[in-house]
Amino acid sequence: MTYRIESIINPELEVKLQQKINLKTKPIGALGELERIAFKIGCIQQTENPKVENPAIVVFAGDHGIAAKGEVNPFPQEVTSQMVYNFVNGGAAINIFSNTNGLNLKIVDAGVNYKFPEVFDIINAKIDFGTKNYQEEPAMTLEQCEKAFFKGGDIISTLKDGGTNTIGFGEMGISNTSSAALLMAYFTKIPISDCVGAGTGLNNEGISKKQQILSEVYKKYDPKNPLEAMSVFGGFEIAMLCGAILKAAELKMTIVIDGFIVTAALLAAQAINKNVLEYCIFAHNSNEKGHIKMLNFLNAKPLLSLGLRLGEGTGAALAIPLVQVSVNFLNDMASFDAAGVSGETKD
Amino acid sequence: MTYRIESIINPELEVKLQQKINLKTKPIGALGELERIAFKIGCIQQTENPKVENPAIVVFAGDHGIAAKGEVNPFPQEVTSQMVYNFVNGGAAINIFSNTNGLNLKIVDAGVNYKFPEVFDIINAKIDFGTKNYQEEPAMTLEQCEKAFFKGGDIISTLKDGGTNTIGFGEMGISNTSSAALLMAYFTKIPISDCVGAGTGLNNEGISKKQQILSEVYKKYDPKNPLEAMSVFGGFEIAMLCGAILKAAELKMTIVIDGFIVTAALLAAQAINKNVLEYCIFAHNSNEKGHIKMLNFLNAKPLLSLGLRLGEGTGAALAIPLVQVSVNFLNDMASFDAAGVSGETKD
Repeated sequence: MTYRIESIINPELEVKLQQKINLKTKPIGALGELERIAFKIGCIQQTENPKVENPAIVVFAGDHGIAAKGEVNPFPQEVTSQMVYNFVNGGAAINIFSNTNGLNLKIVDAGVNYKFPEVFDIINAKIDFGTKNYQEEPAMTLEQCEKAFFKGGDIISTLKDGGTNTIGFGEMGISNTSSAALLMAYFTKIPISDCVGAGTGLNNEGISKKQQILSEVYKKYDPKNPLEAMSVFGGFEIAMLCGAILKAAELKMTIVIDGFIVTAALLAAQAINKNVLEYCIFAHNSNEKGHIKMLNFLNAKPLLSLGLRLGEGTGAALAIPLVQVSVNFLNDMASFDAAGVSGETKD
Repeated sequence: MTYRIESIINPELEVKLQQKINLKTKPIGALGELERIAFKIGCIQQTENPKVENPAIVVFAGDHGIAAKGEVNPFPQEVTSQMVYNFVNGGAAINIFSNTNGLNLKIVDAGVNYKFPEVFDIINAKIDFGTKNYQEEPAMTLEQCEKAFFKGGDIISTLKDGGTNTIGFGEMGISNTSSAALLMAYFTKIPISDCVGAGTGLNNEGISKKQQILSEVYKKYDPKNPLEAMSVFGGFEIAMLCGAILKAAELKMTIVIDGFIVTAALLAAQAINKNVLEYCIFAHNSNEKGHIKMLNFLNAKPLLSLGLRLGEGTGAALAIPLVQVSVNFLNDMASFDAAGVSGETKD
């Protein structure tokens, strides 16, 4: 929990960045959100000439004890490991999105209930074979939670050493919208029933049952801090995401936040160190019910709103090209002077 | 005006496409708008395996008689030709966006008030050195308008012959938000004052003056058909866009519509042949005031809402990667069966 995250606020640089943006051959403000992204990446990298280098998507996968009962999840628990196979074989949405957009995709086994062959191209950071069912006991021990948290950070350090400065975060884990909803309620104080949604596709009856189950779970525990909250509500992939996000901010990387579960991890991260938010770009507004409320809680304005509700980092993978184009216009677009274009007529 | 545009409706293919999408390894509907794009491109190309081939951005540039007076435009008329120089030199936003996203950028001189050197890498389709001022007389003759219309189509035919099947349309022309507003009022019957916006950045006083001027212009004419409307209200680039859009639909290409001016050209195009709309993807919701009302009139749901108001095809250039990713997931993502992933548990 000892991450030191510097604030990116630098008034002198901000003036220079805004001036550079305003002198580009376009009306003031005409590139809208892209101007704000260019400005933000400049601040994150503390330069007027930022770069997107080796952009990556990191998907953390983990299993959840509650999934075994099938009460909150339309898909069976095995789908987590089956989807990891799908990632490795290149057949999932995030593979297609990453390939199309030139993103380096990394898959992390944070705690899937399956032993993958050693030869698999995944990062083995397994804490255990799935969490416990929090209906009966905490999802994990505090020690496991800390271990997941720091392993997340280590993975990011390695990526940074490999030259990556922009990361989109994703996840896979049957039932992890339930953990995310519990964490959302804990960190935002929004009633748990407003935090629970359809996940991968529950019908109204299924949502009611999920709300009832998670309300009871929420009442059962009284965690004293963010780490304890993640340890009781799970999951391994969320605790790992939380540590990874904080480490990425410490290393001054651009963090691209995906959907409901990744944002839940960010809720924990910002409760540990608020400065982390300065490093975040919010990729999209997911169709999972609670996500927009999370974003509002964080005063976050997402770039895309495409009705996605898949996770895996798919929203982040669509947003990184917008980050790339923003940085490129800041660096490569001509100024009025350089291009010999007349400015606005002043009366 | 004799374009034959086939409807893309094909119930048998639609069933197959929807089935193919639903069998991909994701919950039903979880890719939101991207599923709708994949479905649409399949219908446009009448295949379950569509492709995005040599995607291009075509920017039509033209000057407007009214601009010379500087009453409706904060930037002087010369900026049109200066920006064409900027396009040729690679310094404008659309250059950066096209380069970043791998799009073939074509610049068309539809009627800029400047004689460009022959060596310039632009398509010379000049109708005249800018339109007339519609405050005094029609922007162009009917013959000029027809000529622009058909030249637009010819340019698209050439692109099609070169292997392009996906086109984003853009434009450049100081004062062309005024022509677009007049055409919007004509085709939608929305009061002209609601069609007039800030353009490249008028203040409230400037907008009031523009509204007053354009209200008078609107009352001055009573065009009998879409071609006559474009001939009186201008401009060359809009008439050329209109013909280009219709030809692209005739050739079964995917049409990516940019902002306010391109959508005005589409309003004219769909008044000529409604089927054209079946071939259109709406890139974004521009910050120019009237654009959202145009989109609503067309029942169009744009993909992006990033506060852009630049034109040049910049919104289209950001949307084409979303089209690409949609087509790629349709072709390359694994099905549940192929990946060995369990489907939803049915009770």
